[in-house]
Amino acid sequence: MKVVEYPKREEWASLLERPGMDTKTLESTVTAIMKDVGERGDAALREYALKYDKAELGDLAVSEAEFAEAEAAVPKELQNAIGQAKANIEKFHALPATEPQKIETTPGVFCWRRQLPIEKVGIYVPAGSAPLFSTVLMLAIPARIAGCREIVMCSPANSDGKIDPTTLYAARLCGVTKVFKIGGAQAVAAMTFGTESVPRVYKIFGPGNQYVTEAKMQATRFGVAIDMPAGPSEVAVIADDSCVPEFVAADLLSQAEHGPDSQVVLAATSREVIENVMSEIERQVAELPRRETAETALGNSNAFLVSGIGDAVELMNEYAAEHLIIATENAEDVAEQITNAGSIFIGNYSCESAGDYASGTNHTLPTNGYARALSGVSTASFLKSVTYQQLTAEGIRNLGPAIETMAGAERLEAHKRAISVRLAALGGGDGV
Amino acid sequence: MKVVEYPKREEWASLLERPGMDTKTLESTVTAIMKDVGERGDAALREYALKYDKAELGDLAVSEAEFAEAEAAVPKELQNAIGQAKANIEKFHALPATEPQKIETTPGVFCWRRQLPIEKVGIYVPAGSAPLFSTVLMLAIPARIAGCREIVMCSPANSDGKIDPTTLYAARLCGVTKVFKIGGAQAVAAMTFGTESVPRVYKIFGPGNQYVTEAKMQATRFGVAIDMPAGPSEVAVIADDSCVPEFVAADLLSQAEHGPDSQVVLAATSREVIENVMSEIERQVAELPRRETAETALGNSNAFLVSGIGDAVELMNEYAAEHLIIATENAEDVAEQITNAGSIFIGNYSCESAGDYASGTNHTLPTNGYARALSGVSTASFLKSVTYQQLTAEGIRNLGPAIETMAGAERLEAHKRAISVRLAALGGGDGV
Repeated sequence: MKVVEYPKREEWASLLERPGMDTKTLESTVTAIMKDVGERGDAALREYALKYDKAELGDLAVSEAEFAEAEAAVPKELQNAIGQAKANIEKFHALPATEPQKIETTPGVFCWRRQLPIEKVGIYVPAGSAPLFSTVLMLAIPARIAGCREIVMCSPANSDGKIDPTTLYAARLCGVTKVFKIGGAQAVAAMTFGTESVPRVYKIFGPGNQYVTEAKMQATRFGVAIDMPAGPSEVAVIADDSCVPEFVAADLLSQAEHGPDSQVVLAATSREVIENVMSEIERQVAELPRRETAETALGNSNAFLVSGIGDAVELMNEYAAEHLIIATENAEDVAEQITNAGSIFIGNYSCESAGDYASGTNHTLPTNGYARALSGVSTASFLKSVTYQQLTAEGIRNLGPAIETMAGAERLEAHKRAISVRLAALGGGDGV
Repeated sequence: MKVVEYPKREEWASLLERPGMDTKTLESTVTAIMKDVGERGDAALREYALKYDKAELGDLAVSEAEFAEAEAAVPKELQNAIGQAKANIEKFHALPATEPQKIETTPGVFCWRRQLPIEKVGIYVPAGSAPLFSTVLMLAIPARIAGCREIVMCSPANSDGKIDPTTLYAARLCGVTKVFKIGGAQAVAAMTFGTESVPRVYKIFGPGNQYVTEAKMQATRFGVAIDMPAGPSEVAVIADDSCVPEFVAADLLSQAEHGPDSQVVLAATSREVIENVMSEIERQVAELPRRETAETALGNSNAFLVSGIGDAVELMNEYAAEHLIIATENAEDVAEQITNAGSIFIGNYSCESAGDYASGTNHTLPTNGYARALSGVSTASFLKSVTYQQLTAEGIRNLGPAIETMAGAERLEAHKRAISVRLAALGGGDGV
């Protein structure tokens, strides 16, 4: 990590800049895949599986026999750990038991709102360097709680034509309705357009590489919603003398191991903290299997020495981290001052790993500064809100004239007349 | 309108298809504008104002003097109507007074969620054929309620270099912090990148033509969130013999006058209703100033004769209308069966105009079938949700082993070690 002491405010923006992603080069590749899958369906998907996953596939859907085989392959200890995580995620993602509240905004004008499940959703679960079954929990559990009728999942097969057993076990456990052996941009294309095997869905969730992300961006041009644009994962830590440098180092490394483009940021209030964290990183990184990845990521990362917690807070509000760990005195008070972050971890025992797997919060969070405007995935991400209104004769009498005036001023005569014909029909009487 | 009697289910999808939008041709124009404004800032904006709006602009920002002049130009009756609408919109968009609830998912593991305002938001208000000041109310009121610190608005100037006075009056009334005389894709570009005059924002709201929509789609590639992809406006009506054909016709026309690409759909349970609505349309359309526009829109629209309310409901769930009017017996029960719609208007006195202006619900709604997955704008659209967690020593002891097991199974060793170092530090003791 590069140490930057007392960065000047006018330099913050450039110091906090994320590594840029050049999507132009892959845009046309993804456009071609989207078109091809849209036109040729399953046949195209089988060809891409052979080309990219080296898998020769018959059925694209995972069979009952494969699910049973997967369950048998997952060790009991892991099943129990997943069970504990699932229970916590369910508790945190439970739907509030609120009834729609009718609001009478003007006498005779009733308005209300209901949340309805998105009927068909798609979940993409990357495989690649490691099976990311925790993604299944984080997406399928809230989808199930929301009441989505169809929960489609796609994940690439390995060269034996199989999906990782823990991923399948988690899918079945969490209520995924259909699983397909499809990876990359072609999976997003399949769920966007539908194919002979794969149902078209209305919203697509899940992380992935740059091709998957680009495909999700393109899917929004075909009437499909997405959870959020995904970028490389990031963690930021605010630390003062009360932090445990060994813990801080472990947290920074747990993010750095994700990929060479992962970003970690440290804002510390003393030179000593930075020095101690740095020497702990040096000690711990040597033992990591993904040492090289972590070292590359750290090479692109900064440790900032700041003059106090106030500055650290402002710096982090400017950065808008996906994960923010607060390892300071009065950590909860500091957390209250944060205006931009995806998820906040308070105090020395609240490490990012907890939220990544099992504490109950969701790990699908806004990266790349999107935490300024977007929320992480929650049960609400699988619901949509519909508004309702009912006007009585009294309501249209009370509100109609104002609507006529406004519609007239916007020169929308037919909008005005929709009121006028009703007021005229009511005449002086009471109407229906 | 074309009448389709008892459409076969396998034909629904094609019968309900929206007119396609070809965005390819304008994509490169918008890309060039985005790049130009990003690079040259205010100078580029002034050139575009001259080119597209025929306005020679000095200051891009609206001055205090201009706001005062605008207020004086808005008739008292219109001010009162706007005031009545504002009060209703505020009532419906009020924030629920809920305190964040801490959930103890496992003993010692506390998780909670808070909603925070998006600090900087941008609102685009189109002008063109008519001043759409109602858009200001629908976007600025919830932004203000959410607590957004900076509410930037852009709207094109006319050839005198002015923005419509009612639009300015509404902006000031509803708490917009800065108003700029910028229209089209260049307004979206200005709010995406920021210029000498215009602040960069984190989320952009508002309707517009295809250039504005394309610019919003492109803005999402530069770290800016948008409210939703906007398409041509639509209304659908479910009607049975209890409907008032005169009202139904007026409602269909109020949508059809929006633009030649507007869509209206009628699903009626009797041939008589269709015939009566059609002859009412013929009578009413003759009186409309926007007769030609409405007739073009109606020409692309269908009236479906269905065998009963059940079929009408299914057809409309397939269509997923932006606005759905239910003019039937037991309209509220019918509304309960709708799974896909932006906003639902229940009964003969609940016309779309009410929701467009003044009942209290928001008129910024998902078009083009997006109601399957997206919600209309609400106060929540101006908030983001941040999750928090705090683990005690007991918490990490209780949950740590499960996290270690899962991280190990995902082959993320550093994630596992972030737990292990804490468990080791705790040893058998109680820790901090």
